[in-house]
Parts: sequence; structure tokens; C-alpha cells
Amino acid sequence: MQDFNMEEHPHRRYNALTGEWVLVSPHRAKRPWQGQVEKGQVEKRPEYDAQCYLCPGNERAGGEKNPDYKSTYTFVNDFSALLPDTPQGEEIEGELFRAESEQGICKVICFSPRHDLTIPEMSHEAVCGVVDVWQKEYRELGQKKFINYVQIFENKGAVMGCSNPHPHGQIWSSRSIPVEPMKEQLQQMAYFKKHGRTLLSDYLTQELEKDQRIIYKNDHFVVLAPYWAVWPFEAMIVSRRPVPSLDHLSEYEKSGLADAYRHLTILYDNLFETSFPYSAGLHQAPTDGREHPEWHLHMHFYPPLLRSATVKKFMVGYEMLANPQRDITPETSTRRLKELPSVHYKFR
Amino acid sequence: MQDFNMEEHPHRRYNALTGEWVLVSPHRAKRPWQGQVEKGQVEKRPEYDAQCYLCPGNERAGGEKNPDYKSTYTFVNDFSALLPDTPQGEEIEGELFRAESEQGICKVICFSPRHDLTIPEMSHEAVCGVVDVWQKEYRELGQKKFINYVQIFENKGAVMGCSNPHPHGQIWSSRSIPVEPMKEQLQQMAYFKKHGRTLLSDYLTQELEKDQRIIYKNDHFVVLAPYWAVWPFEAMIVSRRPVPSLDHLSEYEKSGLADAYRHLTILYDNLFETSFPYSAGLHQAPTDGREHPEWHLHMHFYPPLLRSATVKKFMVGYEMLANPQRDITPETSTRRLKELPSVHYKFR
Ligand SMILES: O=P(O)(O)O[C@H]1O[C@H](CO)[C@@H](O)[C@H](O)[C@H]1O
Ligand SMILES: O=P(O)(O)O[C@H]1O[C@H](CO)[C@@H](O)[C@H](O)[C@H]1O
Repeated sequence: MQDFNMEEHPHRRYNALTGEWVLVSPHRAKRPWQGQVEKGQVEKRPEYDAQCYLCPGNERAGGEKNPDYKSTYTFVNDFSALLPDTPQGEEIEGELFRAESEQGICKVICFSPRHDLTIPEMSHEAVCGVVDVWQKEYRELGQKKFINYVQIFENKGAVMGCSNPHPHGQIWSSRSIPVEPMKEQLQQMAYFKKHGRTLLSDYLTQELEKDQRIIYKNDHFVVLAPYWAVWPFEAMIVSRRPVPSLDHLSEYEKSGLADAYRHLTILYDNLFETSFPYSAGLHQAPTDGREHPEWHLHMHFYPPLLRSATVKKFMVGYEMLANPQRDITPETSTRRLKELPSVHYKFR
Repeated sequence: MQDFNMEEHPHRRYNALTGEWVLVSPHRAKRPWQGQVEKGQVEKRPEYDAQCYLCPGNERAGGEKNPDYKSTYTFVNDFSALLPDTPQGEEIEGELFRAESEQGICKVICFSPRHDLTIPEMSHEAVCGVVDVWQKEYRELGQKKFINYVQIFENKGAVMGCSNPHPHGQIWSSRSIPVEPMKEQLQQMAYFKKHGRTLLSDYLTQELEKDQRIIYKNDHFVVLAPYWAVWPFEAMIVSRRPVPSLDHLSEYEKSGLADAYRHLTILYDNLFETSFPYSAGLHQAPTDGREHPEWHLHMHFYPPLLRSATVKKFMVGYEMLANPQRDITPETSTRRLKELPSVHYKFR
């Protein structure tokens, strides 16, 4: 009998960050596709759109008017999923019916006054401005007594449920620590207690040595396809220094994060020569007033495209009911991404 | 200060089946939508499609020819994600790099020879035929020594990644117990050990008493919107008798399951007068040779539509990185579903 070979045989990989597993079916990439095809991103957007509620000077849904901002602009979400003044309370009936009220603050960050840009099309300095706002917001929101977790994220592209193409991200901060960061916290804590080092610093050391999933690196951050990646071109940006949050980043390190963010998204756009959709977000220490030496700052990228600008991977059926599953291996995705030009296709 | 009220205030609910939480933001349903709009389901399909690889008599991708089947038809998936003959093996390097090969069998079940039908448009007898095949396949696959879990599911609609509209479901069976059933197993086991009754039988008793989330019931099965539902119109079919799997169902009970399945999907179609997309699947005891008195057979329905036939809920950004979130409450969804006519809109 043949030996088990991860490039060829169906297998499961363990996600050390969450404690869950992913099913990898490398042989399945040959499957034909007769299913849904997404709209291509052909439309060219104007620099300013009078209908856009994020453009400078325009009126928003709540009736407020945006200032004539020149770089980034942050405001409280007009349709916040979480509100600061929700009354405290819970409804508990035995073990099976448990609810508790939740407080929080939701914000929107416009990345640029230009309606037609995206992160990979912005200058390095402009992306540094975005990272600055993240750090400032993480600190300010985190200092509030009732905010114990700050989730910074970006939905990019209509296929990712983004309801406005103006370049922007969001922050949802809450009293509770949400499910996903909580899984990572438990795994990181167990590892740190055992080894006295963060899980991701040991992981990074080994990944750099193996050099099979490294997509890009600079002095302060490494971009890689996690060993346990679920999405076809999933990536993670990890800080070289084991810092628990944005709060600890120096100016140099912030510039390094901006560079990694911009570089990765340029590769993404270049892959299918399209504006590459994704959900991305930072995972970092809760702001619950405790020390979190176990936490290691990182940023996840979950992009859905699989075969082309119009065919995505659907996380449905088996994935929803049983287990995440992927077709191409993260090693193959890495090879494809890292060999792409580092100049955006629109500027070549 | 006002009292906490679940119909009005953002809150978290505990999912007793998985041990995870969902964020509910009831006030957020008013948000306008400028995002992606799905294609409507206008196309009328022929009873037979010469291009369809699932229609009777047609040739499939692998070159095999479908028989001229008259009710259901089951075959091994031509693009199986899992294969029975994958060599056993693992690759383990410390705690952070762990992979193991995985064996399994993937099957496709055609629900009907008619290319133009879906479950809610089929007769009760025809849907009974589908449940019969599920029971038979669960038994047969489960008896194989290397199959420890049998996941039966259906992806319906292009928006759910279904690559062929011919009415069909799938079975992916595997050596490992996948992530989601494993979460439910741990929760159900802890509950059963403590109370000597299944978690879902106690849950069902309380839901029937409260009568706030019951969508439909017959003598053997209850259809409800789980207290902890994530998707806007998520539903669960639960057996009244605490049976661990399909294997235990009598003919009457199978007919009850078919009736519940058909009834729920008719309500779904009637909601927006469209062919309502969803992923659905059965959760039941592993076939690992152990007794599983803690397991209680049920079927989940995860439908994405939110506001209309063309606007869906996107589980992206915050949901992927932090926590599932919903806008309308399951109680509101229940009220909307249960008041709909029980005759399919196409047949009225
Ligand atoms: O097997 P199909 O219908 O071709 O594929 C569909 O269902 C599978 C199982 O849920 C998913 O992994 C695929 O992403 C989806 O497109
Ligand atoms: O806030 P938006 O962009 O209107 O909405 C989008 O992002 C949210 C947070 O990830 C999701 O809950 C919504 O489903 C999605 O459409």
C-alpha cells in the first residue's frame, strides 16, 4: 500500500489556534463547476459618489453629515448591532434557556476619502493611517469599563455582504468575549502555561524554518497560509514579536503591519486580476483589565474565491453541519500567491 | 432604567446543543440594504434535462450512465471528497503540526427522476421514499468498520453552492467524527449523564409548553425555531421519541419525519413565494459501535434568506471572526412561518 501523502490524500489537519479540525481533499480540485457564478468586478467607480453615505460631505442614514475628511474618518455605526446603553439583565431557565443582555459600541472606519480605492490601491502612508486608527480605537474603546473585547474587521466585496464599496472597515466592541477569540484564548493560554512562550511565536519559528507556507515577510510581520487554513487562499499576518495587542506596537511595527496588509491584498488582487473579496480582522487580547501574556496579535484573511474571479468556495452543507472542508492545499495556495508580482495589476 | 427585554434589546443566547453563543440584535432589522442582491428563482425547469448528470438515463462525469430510475437513485459521488482506500497515516510534529489521513465514502441521492421538482413540490409518498433511503444508507454505511459517522445533508439552491438544481442530497461518511456533531455529542453526553434523559427531550418538553417557537408538529416529530437559532429562518426537526438515529425509526415515524420535512419546506417556499434555498442535514449517533443513549435524532435547516427572495443574511466579518449574529428574533420568525398556508404557492 502507498504511503500517506498530504499533497494527494484526503486528510484532517488540527487547528492549534482553535482546537478544531479541517478536512483537506487535495484530489478534489478537478471537480467541474456548474453552480453559481458571481458577478465580475468590472464597474469603475468615481472618486466621489454623491449617493454614498461614506463619502466626505455626504449625509448619512441617521441624518448626520460627514466632515470633509482628508485621510480616515471614524464614526459610530448608524445601525449598530450593539448599543452602549442596553439595560443589564438575563433570562435564565434551567440549563437549556439562557440569555443575557449585551452592551457594546459599533464603529465604522472610512479608510480613505476616495470612493474608488481599496487597501491594495492605497499608498503605504495611507494604509499606515488606517493602522494608526485601529491602534487608537483599540485603546480608547478598550479603556471603557464595559468593553472587554474589541473586534476590528473589514468586509470587502459584495460577495462578502459588504453593503457599500467605499473602502471601510468596522469595529464591534462588546462586554462579552465572542466565541472565536474565546476559543483562541483557551488554546493560547494552555500553550503558554505549558511552555512559557506564545503558541504563535513557536508556530512562526517552525513555519519560517519549513518555508512551505510563507507568503511574505518584513522586519516585523510575517504573512503565511496557516497549516490549518480553511478558505482556499486564507492567510494570516503574525507579528514577529509576541505582543498581545495593537497597543504594544511601535511606529516601526505599525508600518510593518501596514506593509504586510497592503502587500498581501496586492497579491490577492493580482491572483485573478480582480478586486479580491475577503473578510479580514485582527485577533488580540481582550480589554478586560487582565494581563494576557498568552495572546499573540494576528490578523486573519478569509477570502472566498476558489477558481477564478467568479467562482467561489461555498461553506455550506457538509461544512455547516459537519466540518470545514477545502480542496487545494495551503501549500499550493502559498506557491501561487508568492510568485505573483508585488505591483498591483492596475498600476502595471 | 428600562428592564431587559429580549424582543427589543441586543443580547446573547446560549446554544445548549453546541455550548456556543449567538448574538441577537432585534433592533437592527430596520437597517437599509444597498448590498448584493441574489438572482430570483424565475426559471422554469423542464421535467427532463438532457444536460443534467442526475436525470435518468443520462451519462455522468465519470462516464457511467444513470439507470432509468423511477423514485430515488443513489450512487457514489464522482468527485468524492473522501475515499475508502486512502492509506492510513499521520504526520505529527509537536503540538502545532498535526495531520492524519481520513477515509470515507461520499454518495449522492437523487430524490426524484423529475428534474423540475423539489421536496416541497413532491408528494408525501415520494418524500417517504427519500427518508427510506436515508435509513437504509445510514445502516449500510454505518455497518462498515471504518465508517464512524454518517452525515446526510441537502444543499438547495444556487445561493447555497448547489451545483445542480436536480433535486438531490448527499451523504459524506467518514472514519472521524466531524467537528459539529462532536460538539453536540459532548453537550448531549454531559446532559444525559446528569439527568438520565436526552438534552433534546427535555428541551422539546419545555418548547411545547412555552409554544413560542413551535412551527409545526405531528405525532412523531416537532418543527421549531431553536431558541439559539443563528440563521434568520433557521429551524430544527426533532423526534418526539428520544431515538439516537434513523436506525430506530418505525414506518410511522419515518412517515412523520417525511411529513415534517415536506411541511417545513412548503412554509419556506411560501414565505417569499420562491424556491427557498437552504442547507439541511441530520445529526444522529456516530456509527462507532458504541451505544449512544445521549444522542437524540434531529435535522437542522440553515436557510440564508433574510428580507426577500433576493436579500440574504451574510455570515461574514464579525460572524467569521468573532460570533454569529442575527437581526430578527427566532420568535418573530416562528410567527411569520407558522401563519403561512400549508399548501405550496404553486399549487394554489
Ligand atoms: O458537492 P457539491 O454540491 O458539488 O458542492 C457543494 O457542497 C459541498 C458539500 O457541502 C461543498 O463542500 C461545496 O463547497 C459546495 O459547492
Ligand atoms: O454592517 P454591514 O456591512 O451593513 O453588514 C455586513 O457586515 C456585518 C458584520 O460582519 C454582518 O453581520 C452583515 O450580515 C453583513 O451584511
